[in-house]
Amino acid sequence: MGKKTEGIKLKLSGKDEGFAAFCDHTVLRAYTTTACVKEFCEEAIKYGAAAVCVNPIHVSLVKKSLKGTGIKTATVIGFPLGATKPSVKAFEASEAIKDGADEVDMVINVGAVREGNHDLVYEDIKGVVDAVGGKAIVKVIIETCYLSREQKIEACKISAKAGAKFVKTSTGMGTGGATVSDIHLMKVSAGGAVQVKASGGIEDRATAYAMIAAGATRLGVSRVPQIVEDDTSMISATKRNQPPQFNDNTEVLVADGCPENAVSAKYTAVRGPDPGYCEYRLITADEYKSLVGGAKPLSDKEPEC
Amino acid sequence: MGKKTEGIKLKLSGKDEGFAAFCDHTVLRAYTTTACVKEFCEEAIKYGAAAVCVNPIHVSLVKKSLKGTGIKTATVIGFPLGATKPSVKAFEASEAIKDGADEVDMVINVGAVREGNHDLVYEDIKGVVDAVGGKAIVKVIIETCYLSREQKIEACKISAKAGAKFVKTSTGMGTGGATVSDIHLMKVSAGGAVQVKASGGIEDRATAYAMIAAGATRLGVSRVPQIVEDDTSMISATKRNQPPQFNDNTEVLVADGCPENAVSAKYTAVRGPDPGYCEYRLITADEYKSLVGGAKPLSDKEPEC
Repeated sequence: MGKKTEGIKLKLSGKDEGFAAFCDHTVLRAYTTTACVKEFCEEAIKYGAAAVCVNPIHVSLVKKSLKGTGIKTATVIGFPLGATKPSVKAFEASEAIKDGADEVDMVINVGAVREGNHDLVYEDIKGVVDAVGGKAIVKVIIETCYLSREQKIEACKISAKAGAKFVKTSTGMGTGGATVSDIHLMKVSAGGAVQVKASGGIEDRATAYAMIAAGATRLGVSRVPQIVEDDTSMISATKRNQPPQFNDNTEVLVADGCPENAVSAKYTAVRGPDPGYCEYRLITADEYKSLVGGAKPLSDKEPEC
Repeated sequence: MGKKTEGIKLKLSGKDEGFAAFCDHTVLRAYTTTACVKEFCEEAIKYGAAAVCVNPIHVSLVKKSLKGTGIKTATVIGFPLGATKPSVKAFEASEAIKDGADEVDMVINVGAVREGNHDLVYEDIKGVVDAVGGKAIVKVIIETCYLSREQKIEACKISAKAGAKFVKTSTGMGTGGATVSDIHLMKVSAGGAVQVKASGGIEDRATAYAMIAAGATRLGVSRVPQIVEDDTSMISATKRNQPPQFNDNTEVLVADGCPENAVSAKYTAVRGPDPGYCEYRLITADEYKSLVGGAKPLSDKEPEC
């Protein structure tokens, strides 16, 4: 965490053993059973994930399953709408600590951010930070898909001020997930002491490494084993099932380097306006240069608002 | 509530003033602002809704806005995943009561229902019933889209035993919403003392009345004003934007009567496997008879499992 990740090498096919260490292996469905949670814990141990992230009812089970492995137990608070009262978020967090949570990912009060009620946003986050009392780190999910650029910046600043250790892009249950430009914006806005977690729609290696290249030090991912083992089949599946749809707002994700590639080209993931749509193509070195130049994903300068 | 609704007349076009009294006018988005909540309250007063249903952070505002109108203040607990701890659901419910909630719609522990942990399901619901202590009625959202027929029956029986006043089909945020066959199944399973609320995907008058005809006494609806004013435009919009896709599992919803229709035929809403897809067509009296006969939506006999 926190290490220099620019120019990271993307292995397109074959095993990628380093990947899991960036990941919160995540299972947060309404219908998740304890059997499923146990399976996720076994996978996290096998691959060496950073944490297993589950709903509050499964924290005790995860803590027990991961005992002695060094892998963290993570949970969610006020999830996924963020529309529970500050008192309830604080109580929920304290109950999670009792059950052994090492990390709590709370959802921000999205409506309050949107209407500029910054005192309420702060109070809500600070209440959770105080409730965990240093026994867990707090990540604040700002749910980027519902916020303007200015609101994202404000949400990150308030999170940092209230004592969060991470700002996190998405619940994965809104209308959009992590994007490279949001990761960059959040990193700059929250300041150096706060890390960024990318989550929502990260289902393949190219997208994951684009997030890391942009500054994310943690990823929320449900498919850790598949991505570690071999990304190639997933890319094919994505191409087959989800026809690309692009418009003027299409975002271009760039991951540097593709050593396996015979034609000495760069590898690019192009994501459509709908997070479900994703296409992959090879580009020339010149095209890559112009894309990186245009997007400036690695600049540390405060973006203009 | 509880009155005989068989053979209800469906007015296809023009104002339908009786409709709103069945409805919880509902706004539960992550990004909902206080301005939006106020607008929903004004609409509920104008049209005479049964209740306004909002996220917990908006209960106080709704209570104040509806003062003296007789319209109930409703909120949601453990929403929408149902995967918070029983202690947290109980605390959240007691906080809602403090803020003035008259009705709390709690989400069942879906995973526990699926793995047959009935004691935990009961404890979870009973905890909320006890926390509100008779100051509010409790509705249990069983999230039908994730349950088998047997699990739905069990969820309803446990809800009734734990003291719920309603069982409710859906959060509106799962993979499916209310269906006529589920309403019927839930009514029979929960027993006579427990009412049924239909929710999720009810966006037009035909679907709404099909639910009432099947036994629902309350509906969760976000578009009360549009449905009351004139349903015709919405039906057209649905037909235009969402091409029907049917397969062997397509469910047929039947609403009795269409007085405005010149060709003296019955009116039918046919819903596709995806809750987003819906088609309307006119059918003959014979066709109607065979559909009603086949579906037996109004029978009170326990369905075979």
